[in-house]
Formats: sequence, C-alpha cells, structure tokens
Amino acid sequence: MKAIWLDDQPRLRSDLPMPAPAAGEALVKVRLAGVCSTDLALLDGYYPFTGVLGHEFVGEITGAPTAPERVGERVVGSINISCGHCRECLACRPNHCLNREVLGIKHHDGAFAEYLCLPLDNLHRVPDGVPDPAAVFAEPLAAALEIPELVPIKPSDRVLLVGAGRLGQLIARVLALTGAELDVVARHAHQRQRLQGIGARCIEEQEVADGHYDLVVEASGAPGGFALARQALRPRGTLCLKSTYRGEVPVALSTLVVDEIRIIGSRCGPFPAALRLLEQQRVDPTPLVDCVEPLANGVVALRRAAEQSVLKALIDCS
Amino acid sequence: MKAIWLDDQPRLRSDLPMPAPAAGEALVKVRLAGVCSTDLALLDGYYPFTGVLGHEFVGEITGAPTAPERVGERVVGSINISCGHCRECLACRPNHCLNREVLGIKHHDGAFAEYLCLPLDNLHRVPDGVPDPAAVFAEPLAAALEIPELVPIKPSDRVLLVGAGRLGQLIARVLALTGAELDVVARHAHQRQRLQGIGARCIEEQEVADGHYDLVVEASGAPGGFALARQALRPRGTLCLKSTYRGEVPVALSTLVVDEIRIIGSRCGPFPAALRLLEQQRVDPTPLVDCVEPLANGVVALRRAAEQSVLKALIDCS
Ligand SMILES: [Zn+2]
Ligand SMILES: [Zn+2]
Repeated sequence: MKAIWLDDQPRLRSDLPMPAPAAGEALVKVRLAGVCSTDLALLDGYYPFTGVLGHEFVGEITGAPTAPERVGERVVGSINISCGHCRECLACRPNHCLNREVLGIKHHDGAFAEYLCLPLDNLHRVPDGVPDPAAVFAEPLAAALEIPELVPIKPSDRVLLVGAGRLGQLIARVLALTGAELDVVARHAHQRQRLQGIGARCIEEQEVADGHYDLVVEASGAPGGFALARQALRPRGTLCLKSTYRGEVPVALSTLVVDEIRIIGSRCGPFPAALRLLEQQRVDPTPLVDCVEPLANGVVALRRAAEQSVLKALIDCS
Repeated sequence: MKAIWLDDQPRLRSDLPMPAPAAGEALVKVRLAGVCSTDLALLDGYYPFTGVLGHEFVGEITGAPTAPERVGERVVGSINISCGHCRECLACRPNHCLNREVLGIKHHDGAFAEYLCLPLDNLHRVPDGVPDPAAVFAEPLAAALEIPELVPIKPSDRVLLVGAGRLGQLIARVLALTGAELDVVARHAHQRQRLQGIGARCIEEQEVADGHYDLVVEASGAPGGFALARQALRPRGTLCLKSTYRGEVPVALSTLVVDEIRIIGSRCGPFPAALRLLEQQRVDPTPLVDCVEPLANGVVALRRAAEQSVLKALIDCS
C-alpha cells in the first residue's frame, strides 16, 4: 500500500505491506488525515521515529476478526495503544501505559496511509451528521476538551489563551464554550481572522495585563509564551500547558510558591465529547482547513503545514 | 524597647520606640517567638528587609484602642497585612494583597521584640489548653495545613515528602493525619529521629521509586529536591511546592505535558485549624524545639537555627 514514511526525510512509499490487525485490533481504511504540529516536530527529530507518520484521521473499519459486526463503521481513533497489564494500565491510566505505542508517533505505523490498525477499544463511531472534514479534527478537539476536564472554568472567569495555531484555534473554541471572558494572543492576521465570531477577543502580546487572568492556557510552545502566560496569571491562578517545549525552560519556582500558582500539563482528552460537539455543530473546525492534498502528495501537505500562513493541512487517503 | 534588628547584620537594639497601633490594630506583648528558614534567608539577603525580624510568635494583647474587650487575650497572628482595597483584597485574596506588608519580612516590624503591632483581624485567640511552646508553631503549622486544603489526599494515596527540616517536620505531621502511606526523605539522623512514631517511613534519597507517588511535597528548597520530587511522581500526580528556591530552576516543561503533571505552589494556611489541632494534641510540635534563648540573646538563637543539627530555635521575649 501507499503511505508517507519517515526515516531521515518523509517520503511516499508504495511498497509497504498492508498492516495486519493483531488480536483485538481492527483494520481501518483511512479516508482523511490531518497534519499536526507533532508531525512537524517528528520531522525535526524531536522524537526518534521511523515508520508511517500521522495520528489524526477518520476512516472506515474494513476488517475486525474478533468483532465482524463493526466492519463498515466510520471511525476516529484515540492514539495510545496500551498494554493492559503495567502499573499505569492497572491504575486505570491507559494513556500513560509504560509500554504504550502511539499511532504514528511511537512504535506504531500511523494514518498517512491507505490503511492502519488500531485496537477496537480505541475506535469511536462517528455520528452520521459529522462529515469527514470535521471528524478528522476529533483527536485534537478531544485534546482541547481535556482543559475543562482538568480545570473548572466559570463564566465569571477571565481566561487567556497564548497561541492561536492549529491546536490553539480548537482550544479557543472549547474555552469559548464555557462562557468565560476569553482573550487570545494571536500573532498573525490569518489566525485572528479564524477567531472572529467565536466569542473571543484577539489581543496583542503587549496588551496582556499582568496578574489579570484566572486561567491561562499556553499553546504556543515557545519559552516566551510560557513567560507571558506566567506573568498574566493572578495569584492562585492556573496555568494549563498544552504544548511541548524543546529542552528545559528556566522557571522561578519561588514565585509559584509566593503567588500560590497551579500549573497543569495536559495531553489527550475525551473523544465522545468531541464527537458530540461536532455533531451538535457547537464546534466547527472546518474553516481551519487551508489545504487538502491526496496521499500521493502527502509530503507536500507536510511542507504546506509548516508554512506560517497555513493552519490545517489535510491528506486525502481515500 | 528591645528587639532584634536587621540591616546588614542582625543585632540587638534597646533603643527602639514602642510600636504604636494604627486604627484597627492591636499592640501585642510578645511572649515567645520562633526562628524560621525565611528569617535565615533574610539574613542572607534573599529579600531586602530592614527592621525587626521574626514572624512566628505567641503573645498577649496589651492595647487595642478600637476593641478594648480583647486586651488580655493570648494570641497568635497571621503575618500578611492587607490594604483592603486593591484588586486582590477585593477578590477575597487578602494574603495576596498587592500593597501587603508582612510581619518581620516586608515593611512591617516583626516578632523578635518585646512588642509588635498587627491588625485585630490577624490575631487568633489561643485556646487555654495550648501552651506557649506549642502555640508559637501556629503559623508554620497553618502553612503546612494548606497542603490538604489545596490537594485532596486519600488514605489510599502514596505520598512522598522531600525534606524534613523545621517546616518539613510539621508537614510530615499534617500529611500523616490524612492516613495516606507516607514516605519522608530525611537526610539527617536528628530529622529521622523526630519523625519516629508519627506514621511516616523515613527513606534515603536513593530509595525513592520513580513514578511511584500520587503526591510529592517538596520542602527541601534545593533544586535537587525539585528534580527528585518530579522523578518520584506518577503520571497525573501532583507536586506541591512548599519551599522557596534561589533564582530559576530549569524545568522540562514537555514532560509535565506528556505525563499530565500538576504543580501547586503553597504559602500560608488556616490558623483556626492549626490551633484546633494543637488543642486536640493531634499535632505536637514541641519535640522539635532544640534551643530557647532570651531576647537579649536573639542573635545567638539565629546562629543556632542555622546549624544543621537544630530544628527549632525559640526566642523568649517575655
Ligand atoms: Zn500498560
Ligand atoms: Zn490589598
């Protein structure tokens, strides 16, 4: 089959064998896949990974040896494949499985391919009313939805989002759902334009008031973004980290103690809530799509996604 | 009056005027005061402060122009003096008042003196059954009690405390109250000895299991303590910071995101709970007292407190 393969450089391969579902797994024919900043970080060597890239997708189950009744389901998939018997799995934290594989990120071939395999338990049925170009956002939308799972957010809260890139855009939409007063630091005009009408106010970095916000979500991934977020927080406020950073960032731990600050790191989130909100059209991610390329041009989609003016690049794998 | 005064060096002064209570304040005759690590940090120039040192005390109200009925009360006092009208005061966070003075720490003369002044609202009546050498611990015990205010702690939790100095000893007693499984990294024999019989297990740094603890409390104030605490935490665990650190500490923010870690800084806590627990003798801090010096020898008490083998040094100001 065809897929976008990463070793040194990403490239199209047409010589890959079809993946074979292990026990409890399904074979999924990929329809549409999304390029995420993590994919670009993998290209830059952030984690060592060799294999098929891609972890955001919508597809159709075409084989399920242990659950033939699920063949034909249109599905999205959670990306962590857990072992079921390690300390973290036994403690009901399968996303933190010590032996985990991660679709298109770690030890498991990904979604920029004609077919992929995932455990049946990872696959969530997409409601009929959700079109593929919306469903393909289920994974990052779920990640954004983890924020209100971890931090209670009230309509009377002042919330700041730092960063309005591809994940930041979804986070802005999720934060707006809470009814909180929402400011977003969006650097680029095309980012600000996509935030219009969702209930957020776009501000410049220098407009951020010190000590003003109850909750700040950092989604820029820049050390400067962390410093800005920290500065913007009121005493006893919460800083939610939603992006990864290269290396170590110097942090004035004492001020966290004096100001009694809470920092929460957050990664993956709830798929069922994401799919329901897409079905209800309470979150519409489709305006974020700037580019759709066929799988044969998947490398072009990766290149486009790295351009500053492109928010979401999709790969049509059908 | 006599007091221990800090400018370059701490010294006994006998020429100070009696402090005069402002509106809403009381004059307190200090009976006993405690030396805290923050006092030692002030000697080292951690914050700039010139004035009377000391913020842990028990005393007696000898003057209260606006509340004469309180004269004669034996009291302990919360150390933050708030303005009542700034953003933080109006948001019901007076401990974070933007214009705050802090007893013996910032713009307000402290407790290593014959007399001090504090707002009446800061002064908590000590129950008759609590002797002075226990009551003098009310302030740091309250600070320790803020941990279970911020983090729900269950008997099934595994809790690690890093550091068993003067504050760490009180934290260990508070954490033991929760019934959680408690390990304490205590470097020195005299620290371990004072932890006997409280329901904690003393372990060596190298015995700390990676990823094992639901909650880790860092009370060592050393960058190495922070790294140890972080390492000991399970995914989705909580790291509570109870000590201050010099300068900035490099932190791998990405691992906080991947492991979905929560960090909480904590400073001051609830006095009424501290006084009740002392009255009920559910926390007995008196075995921590290694040295009591009269006010005239207050500088000696400071010097003794800096010795590694001394946990609590008290100053008798009566
Ligand atoms: Zn596992
Ligand atoms: Zn104030």
